[in-house]
Amino acid sequence: MGSIDESIPFYPTLPISIPRGDTMKKHNFEEIKSEVVGKGCKGVNIRWLVTKDMGAENFAMRMFEVEPEGHTPLHSHEWEHEVFVLKGEGLVLAATGEEKIKHGDVIFMPAHEKHQFKNTGEDNLKFLCLIPYLDEK
Amino acid sequence: MGSIDESIPFYPTLPISIPRGDTMKKHNFEEIKSEVVGKGCKGVNIRWLVTKDMGAENFAMRMFEVEPEGHTPLHSHEWEHEVFVLKGEGLVLAATGEEKIKHGDVIFMPAHEKHQFKNTGEDNLKFLCLIPYLDEK
Repeated sequence: MGSIDESIPFYPTLPISIPRGDTMKKHNFEEIKSEVVGKGCKGVNIRWLVTKDMGAENFAMRMFEVEPEGHTPLHSHEWEHEVFVLKGEGLVLAATGEEKIKHGDVIFMPAHEKHQFKNTGEDNLKFLCLIPYLDEK
Repeated sequence: MGSIDESIPFYPTLPISIPRGDTMKKHNFEEIKSEVVGKGCKGVNIRWLVTKDMGAENFAMRMFEVEPEGHTPLHSHEWEHEVFVLKGEGLVLAATGEEKIKHGDVIFMPAHEKHQFKNTGEDNLKFLCLIPYLDEK
């Protein structure tokens, strides 16, 4: 479990060589390259915000931007999604039906469930979508 | 790997009994109870947005709101954080020093690194903070 101990000095003595991935990393999302997502998508860009390269062994954080009338593919896969909608309006389609999404909405999409995200608004639809690194377990 | 197959009907035939956690869950963050975080914190509230109860076996999504002049504890633990700053201004303190944080900033805090978040602004500091379910592996 976590420990709270204010008696320990805040800046610990660090080893001379700090292993890759062993210290905090900070950046703004705008510093991360936005890449077009291809097959099955229309008007979708992705930024990989937190990845294994940064030291994240358990899950990755990505940001998606979907242009008006754009959509992600209707697909399924063996990993789950945890989504937080940052901006815009759209629909999420899943096995149980479709639901409107907007700022502040949170979606848990289980593994193997067929799903799709669509932008139904006039501005970009922007959301975080996190996935586990299943291969690492 | 994932599959993209538009030939499969979008609404599959579902079993009569849908196992808990086996379908999409959607809610707005405001529907989730905001709880005060105690020891070592000042003016900190948490919402557990995606949890094991919802079917998430690998990692949890939480939202923190820190009042002006508030802070999380200076602490460390065996799990990492993946953070996305939604709103406000503050500082993140870690072994490597301190950095200003604002909307759109992304932080990866490795396991075992001593850290703290502080609100230095006039409005609430609001961020997502995701953690792995280490016990489940």
